[in-house]
Amino acid sequence: MTLEVTAGPSAGDSAVAVGALLAARNIALIGASDRVAWSSGLYRNLRASPGLGRLWLVNPVSGTAHGEPTVSSVDAIDEDIDLACVVVGAGRVVDVLHAVAGRGIPAAIVIASGFAEAGEEGAERSAAVQDLARAHGLTILGPNTAGMVNVAGGIWPLATMMSPPASTGPLVIAAQSGGVASQLLRLSQARGIGARAVYGVGNELVVSAVDVVRHHLRDDQTRVIALYLEGIRDPQAFADVAVEAAQAGKPLVVMKVGRSARGGEMVMSHTGAMVGDDQVVDVALRQLGVIRVGTLEDLVTTAGLLAHGPALAGLARPGRGSGPGPSRGIAVVSGSGAGCTMAADRAAAAGLELADFAPGTVAALAALLPAGTEVHNPLDATGAVLGDLQLSARAVAAVAADPNVDAVLCQSMISERFGADLEPLMAERARATAEAVAGSAVPVVLETDIATDVSPELHAVLARAGLYVSRGIDQTIDAMSAAAWWAETAPGVRHPGLPPARPPAGPGRAQAVPMMQLESLEFLRRSGVPVLPSVLATDAAAAVAAARSVGYPVAVKVEADGVTHKSDIGGVALGLSGDGQVAAAFERIIAGAAASVDRQAIRGVLVVPMLQRGTELVVSVSDAAPWGTMLTVGLGGIWVELLNDVVHRLLPVTHTDVLAMLHGLRGRSLLTGGRGRKPANLDRVAQAIIAVTAAAAELGPRLHNIEINPLLAGDEQATVLDALILVRDA
Amino acid sequence: MTLEVTAGPSAGDSAVAVGALLAARNIALIGASDRVAWSSGLYRNLRASPGLGRLWLVNPVSGTAHGEPTVSSVDAIDEDIDLACVVVGAGRVVDVLHAVAGRGIPAAIVIASGFAEAGEEGAERSAAVQDLARAHGLTILGPNTAGMVNVAGGIWPLATMMSPPASTGPLVIAAQSGGVASQLLRLSQARGIGARAVYGVGNELVVSAVDVVRHHLRDDQTRVIALYLEGIRDPQAFADVAVEAAQAGKPLVVMKVGRSARGGEMVMSHTGAMVGDDQVVDVALRQLGVIRVGTLEDLVTTAGLLAHGPALAGLARPGRGSGPGPSRGIAVVSGSGAGCTMAADRAAAAGLELADFAPGTVAALAALLPAGTEVHNPLDATGAVLGDLQLSARAVAAVAADPNVDAVLCQSMISERFGADLEPLMAERARATAEAVAGSAVPVVLETDIATDVSPELHAVLARAGLYVSRGIDQTIDAMSAAAWWAETAPGVRHPGLPPARPPAGPGRAQAVPMMQLESLEFLRRSGVPVLPSVLATDAAAAVAAARSVGYPVAVKVEADGVTHKSDIGGVALGLSGDGQVAAAFERIIAGAAASVDRQAIRGVLVVPMLQRGTELVVSVSDAAPWGTMLTVGLGGIWVELLNDVVHRLLPVTHTDVLAMLHGLRGRSLLTGGRGRKPANLDRVAQAIIAVTAAAAELGPRLHNIEINPLLAGDEQATVLDALILVRDA
Repeated sequence: MTLEVTAGPSAGDSAVAVGALLAARNIALIGASDRVAWSSGLYRNLRASPGLGRLWLVNPVSGTAHGEPTVSSVDAIDEDIDLACVVVGAGRVVDVLHAVAGRGIPAAIVIASGFAEAGEEGAERSAAVQDLARAHGLTILGPNTAGMVNVAGGIWPLATMMSPPASTGPLVIAAQSGGVASQLLRLSQARGIGARAVYGVGNELVVSAVDVVRHHLRDDQTRVIALYLEGIRDPQAFADVAVEAAQAGKPLVVMKVGRSARGGEMVMSHTGAMVGDDQVVDVALRQLGVIRVGTLEDLVTTAGLLAHGPALAGLARPGRGSGPGPSRGIAVVSGSGAGCTMAADRAAAAGLELADFAPGTVAALAALLPAGTEVHNPLDATGAVLGDLQLSARAVAAVAADPNVDAVLCQSMISERFGADLEPLMAERARATAEAVAGSAVPVVLETDIATDVSPELHAVLARAGLYVSRGIDQTIDAMSAAAWWAETAPGVRHPGLPPARPPAGPGRAQAVPMMQLESLEFLRRSGVPVLPSVLATDAAAAVAAARSVGYPVAVKVEADGVTHKSDIGGVALGLSGDGQVAAAFERIIAGAAASVDRQAIRGVLVVPMLQRGTELVVSVSDAAPWGTMLTVGLGGIWVELLNDVVHRLLPVTHTDVLAMLHGLRGRSLLTGGRGRKPANLDRVAQAIIAVTAAAAELGPRLHNIEINPLLAGDEQATVLDALILVRDA
Repeated sequence: MTLEVTAGPSAGDSAVAVGALLAARNIALIGASDRVAWSSGLYRNLRASPGLGRLWLVNPVSGTAHGEPTVSSVDAIDEDIDLACVVVGAGRVVDVLHAVAGRGIPAAIVIASGFAEAGEEGAERSAAVQDLARAHGLTILGPNTAGMVNVAGGIWPLATMMSPPASTGPLVIAAQSGGVASQLLRLSQARGIGARAVYGVGNELVVSAVDVVRHHLRDDQTRVIALYLEGIRDPQAFADVAVEAAQAGKPLVVMKVGRSARGGEMVMSHTGAMVGDDQVVDVALRQLGVIRVGTLEDLVTTAGLLAHGPALAGLARPGRGSGPGPSRGIAVVSGSGAGCTMAADRAAAAGLELADFAPGTVAALAALLPAGTEVHNPLDATGAVLGDLQLSARAVAAVAADPNVDAVLCQSMISERFGADLEPLMAERARATAEAVAGSAVPVVLETDIATDVSPELHAVLARAGLYVSRGIDQTIDAMSAAAWWAETAPGVRHPGLPPARPPAGPGRAQAVPMMQLESLEFLRRSGVPVLPSVLATDAAAAVAAARSVGYPVAVKVEADGVTHKSDIGGVALGLSGDGQVAAAFERIIAGAAASVDRQAIRGVLVVPMLQRGTELVVSVSDAAPWGTMLTVGLGGIWVELLNDVVHRLLPVTHTDVLAMLHGLRGRSLLTGGRGRKPANLDRVAQAIIAVTAAAAELGPRLHNIEINPLLAGDEQATVLDALILVRDA
């Protein structure tokens, strides 16, 4: 799914390139024909575009298309053309683009597929298109796209069927699929979310999703950008715009698909299975402050709340330590007990705390609501709110004034569908709600309990009152949680400084090979990693001497070229407490190893002291190209595969980052003590882990994977007992 | 959230009771008033009801309401009245119902709240309503409801604003919230799902959700029942209808809220934290073949697919063992690569396998689709399907004929919104699709990638072709997975034979107390549980003698009244390998215990042999009233709290059930061997667990909890090392 890394001609100048697409008013539809479905779609949508200047249909053969006369070529057009919409087949695209560039048209949209997906021929066409764009400064959207919709400009060069967009707003959408681009437009419009522009970036031969982001980060009217991505072909450029977005306070919301795809090469170790390509992307997006969602509906709901809803900074969430006393958190106000229960369930699942109401709030609400109403959070303001226009607004105001409440989630009291006779009532409700929202000291999010489309009559009422009502209680609460995470995360986002792209592993690249264990441990020791003392012994007498020198009890392990899982060939003896046991273990291990591997490969045995106390951790530092280097920390020993209790972070990391990672383990209680266990010395553990990352940095591009398993986290020391280093000749 | 158990008057006769509500045509609205919002809503909806016979407005004071004359009481009406809709306040409900019953009206809907939620006064009112219903055979829906909608009958006695239902169909909805009932109707209609009837059952004083289910299981036109539940107040009755539903092949889909509520009393042991009230409900619903969903959207999508989609029996799913060779599974056909990728991602997450296409299928598709199309599953039939009416249908037919394909998920090629000019084209596409679906050897599910409402023009086209298109790719795939689970599960559902309801734990019920450990182990041994031999020693010399008799190495543990966590008071010494160590441990443990507990309570120490080999399991059998008794099996030792890797099942269980539970653990690889570990003797483990359930049965109503931790699962034997039994004087 990862595309090859290619630098388009627009690199560094994408703002201008995307601007050329948005500035277009006078358009040539090239390849216009009644027999081409894309042509019909584009013609229909362009003719319906309120912002259209001139439209020319170009066809060298037929004299008419779509009931209009055609011209034979763009050269036959005298006026300025801003944009060429090209619907010819893939085989004719390069010739047509030559004509477009020659005519001085600044931008083109190319619909045809048959480029990246069409083998060698497609690759040649792709290269020709890029060369042409570079040579002429031609902006190209596609190929393999359905086009775009410039909502704000009223120009809709889209090849699929669409309804006229109902509302302009601060959302920008880009998708690496034309179909998804148009579906996202439809879904966001159906949900009452106004958009500025929607781009199907297709194969991204010239204009990429990253270019779209860069352009709109500098556009004052854009508040949030939603992306549908199948691959991120230039992580460095993506990281650049993600950091810029975080600093600009404009959230990126991303649906990155391909979770189930089998990633590229897996690393040759236990942790390999923990770090699939998709997980690397997941970690990278999180560190870059990008909100990742799992469905198109969540993409639109989350982006909609960020675009139209209030800022949700500073919501109390677990792990942010609210201390003793009443809980801070959100408040829920609903007209039904069911809405309250559903909200409480989802808030708990989404990691949003519910506030405890202060006594003053309880008193104020009790005075306001019908006698007998139970006053607590979530607040069921009862059906009475439907009978009393102002009641809901007053209840929201009372709740919003509570010192424990960070934000209010309020079920909208405006009916979803109503006849013209009820329009004045609904408008009055909308005005009362808008006043309550405007007067609130804390953010107020309005929602409906079900995720249906916004009816036209409701849309009109809400638009007049300036209200946004998010659709679906569960989706809204998930979006609030994501928005709260973003508000916490964005200010601290820093550029991970990704290394230059390396060629992906494959036939053209050297295989990773294991370093010998003794060599590995020595290498780590030189980098400051606390490694258990170990002595290589080549005969039984030397093994006994070594055991006496490191101190009983000891473990004895075979040291042989190419053997990474020593226990599989009977190469490990543990808990030896006397000379005789050590001598016998030496003979048994060497004889056993000789039955499995070439005798030349056997270098002897390592004798190491047994450490009994501590929690076994696994620490892994892996090449996670193209995203850099990934640190993984988790519970180790035999639990690695069973529990998969691991946390990841792209390098570089600080001591504080590593401590946060350790506290992020489900099994952190094994490290923090209790039930008769002493707490581990986490500072020492973190120092050891930082030293491992330093060792990884020393390996440079040779690094494939350093896996420490276990790192024994004791109450005083942290000690590496075993390590496997896989390197690759650059 | 669990309501008190009360038997309404309709028990055993609910079919008649619900039938009375559905038969109503001539209706009296009692309490009709322009100043009562509920009255306005009911009046509006009843007047709009196409199936309405006569409507009388009853008000003893005002002469008009809603622009019509009123009558002063039901006694002033000469004709037969089928149903009274009562909108008076809670305080007047009982009097009004007396008049209703006296007048011979068979059914009433009571909107008012102020019953269960209103303390002692409310409880008195509730009892009066139930007495009255019982005495007069009066069917009552509510109180505390918005009413119901009889879609098929065209009678809409609903107090909230509603749009006229667009379509009748095989779905029945019941909700313990009037607001949710009407929202579910709106959502299902917006999704193109036809309903028979929707009930807000409110407080269920007379007619309950269970009564609605029982009625509609016997109604030929009902195919699926969707329930929104806040509590299940009569588990025995619920289990009865759930088993009846499974046998009748009519799925129940349930959204049960209150997951985040703090459950009742937690049992006094480690496993307590694993078995909250909501988890018991979860386990019970699963065993009863009930599909549980988490959101209103999933409730409607799942019920919609089951109501209108094809039967999905026999889909390949992980753990069903497809064996070597090509994978069986579903096929995905889409017009876009993005749809394919999203479907593959979600199918993997939802546990649906994708089939490998057979070579014949690949050849057939390659011949059919444009040159260069990549043919694999999921199948991107490309944008070409939009240009060629029959192509999509033929591609579906080719895929459906594949021997590896169990079912086809197909993106609908019918546009979502279109003008009148395109209606013939869309109708033709719908006909072609319907032919392909009808001619398919396997089930075909149609979907759209986004979960928007069905436009009226699309609804008309689909209805004429007899097609159902499920909304939203992720929601549809989740629904398919649930339907496949149901098809596998329903035939095997058996009644758990719940015990008679016991009073919930609380002030009125005896506290659970621990049995002494020696007593516990003896009790288990007598029930056939394989318990490690242990000897009680009251002095050091006896402890040494005991250690010699059971064999070194041994463990020594304090035995003292009221001490359940022995290690917390230093009461455990492990791995003692000589007489001196045992004697010293005895003295140390007794001295340590004396510092923590009354010396009178200390009975001595237990001496037990140390078993080194095996996997530690936890086995717990708990009182899970009102749902019966719950067996929990999981990874034990210190991992219980850390991993929470447990599976639950309500008793009774068979040997096969227990083996399935063990295989359901995430950590099952610890039991099945590999990496130098021998497999555990799972038959012995299952026998031991069955014996523990037998011991629990012997305790009868005294059982609070038996917790075995650990049960050591060795390669030959399964042995109980430690047990805690909590009993309650009945």
